[in-house]
Amino acid sequence: MAFIDKLARAWKANNSLVCVGLDPDTSRFPESVESQDEPIYEFNKAIIDATHDLVCAYKPQIAHYAAESAESQLESTIAYIKTTYPDVPIILDAKRGDIGSTAQMYATEVFERYAADAVTVSPYLGFDSFEPFLKYKDRGVILLCRTSNAGAADLQDLMVDAMPLYEKVATLAAQKWNVNGNCLLVVGATWPAQLAKIRGIVGDMPLLVPGVGAQGGDVEKLVRAGQTKAGTGLIISSSRAILYASSGDDFAQAARRETEKLRDQINQHRAVLS
Amino acid sequence: MAFIDKLARAWKANNSLVCVGLDPDTSRFPESVESQDEPIYEFNKAIIDATHDLVCAYKPQIAHYAAESAESQLESTIAYIKTTYPDVPIILDAKRGDIGSTAQMYATEVFERYAADAVTVSPYLGFDSFEPFLKYKDRGVILLCRTSNAGAADLQDLMVDAMPLYEKVATLAAQKWNVNGNCLLVVGATWPAQLAKIRGIVGDMPLLVPGVGAQGGDVEKLVRAGQTKAGTGLIISSSRAILYASSGDDFAQAARRETEKLRDQINQHRAVLS
Repeated sequence: MAFIDKLARAWKANNSLVCVGLDPDTSRFPESVESQDEPIYEFNKAIIDATHDLVCAYKPQIAHYAAESAESQLESTIAYIKTTYPDVPIILDAKRGDIGSTAQMYATEVFERYAADAVTVSPYLGFDSFEPFLKYKDRGVILLCRTSNAGAADLQDLMVDAMPLYEKVATLAAQKWNVNGNCLLVVGATWPAQLAKIRGIVGDMPLLVPGVGAQGGDVEKLVRAGQTKAGTGLIISSSRAILYASSGDDFAQAARRETEKLRDQINQHRAVLS
Repeated sequence: MAFIDKLARAWKANNSLVCVGLDPDTSRFPESVESQDEPIYEFNKAIIDATHDLVCAYKPQIAHYAAESAESQLESTIAYIKTTYPDVPIILDAKRGDIGSTAQMYATEVFERYAADAVTVSPYLGFDSFEPFLKYKDRGVILLCRTSNAGAADLQDLMVDAMPLYEKVATLAAQKWNVNGNCLLVVGATWPAQLAKIRGIVGDMPLLVPGVGAQGGDVEKLVRAGQTKAGTGLIISSSRAILYASSGDDFAQAARRETEKLRDQINQHRAVLS
């Protein structure tokens, strides 16, 4: 099943727009997890088991694995989700971007080695740099548009063609680049006004929205600004606030409580519940 | 020694602006290499042994390793260069870019796990996204400015503040972002006119110039456009044209011949030889 359809089914089945970011930080693991052979995998497995019925996606962020030489635990994590909870789509947050021949290598890494359902990519190098990803028609390709960090404004707010660069990226994505219907955008939860502008440009295109929780994005504002008429269209991602809700052995139960709280908080402001 | 100084020494010691891109493609390896236990490492080792006195840097492109689950062979390759030819700097071509806390994880990957002397990063997310890299003052941080691919124009040529975006990036890098003196830029060899503009903006800042060889950049034009008054300032990278100059068992000797040819061709047009 194509990523976009898998996502739509997960929104509905779990009545949730929440995506849990799997950003393992071993220094924040409980002792009982840290002492295991594959601590990252064990931590993720516990989080996934505790939250799978409350989410529309999981989003492992690859730097957290690469910094620890833990590629194999990323592979095991993704394989575990695919085997145990096959209806939950997996977004590999990798923000790749390179020229065509190398972009193909990155697409092989993300879609074949890790078998992710979707990936985040940077638009700076232009269309031919993400075309190799878009050719995997059953996968999602999520272009950075307006990111959640303070420095986002440095380039993304520069005015081009009478609009800020991030709106230009949204316009190109909606009108030109989405040739296979598998293109999405990243828009930080910290910018509800910009999110509303982007929603106006891209129609029903799903948006990945990181930045609630630790980064402080306001849930009500972002849901009102970003949802589609159907009350969906958003993949609202939280990582640290969920993963490290408790530093004790009850971390998975605490993660479930936080995920449920975020889901319910989001659902209060949705136009239509699925 | 800081990357910038190591680079300047290598320019001079080997009288060369050539960087060999270590982009292993196992499907193009000779049978005798392909059949070994660590084919990528063996291939790289042979290339490095054959070219180390002709180059100013090596540039492994990480996707070529990640697509093959060959992170350990990338580690071995870098360790081999550091041990055997410690004067040759290593640029890890990874084009990373993410928000601050995750950027730190990528910096750990690149500068601690792989111990690279320099890295390529994307500027799309703004200053705070590459600040964690810049804080490693003895390493080089090479921002994408005008890339070698055809699609580069999609965003990089958009006019902002009466200049194309790539010139804005060069201006910000030269005037604002280079707080620790370890910032460089990527400018494709395929765009000599843009290279000249960028050289005018950034003074003596070194530029990484990929795109000669397989991508067709014109050596004379790029050297004339990009060199500093001292006849340096450029890291001219070629990968496929050198690595796959021969598909037989003489691939390393053929790589040496191609590297020497490119070095001499470049040196013909340098203002001052070191």
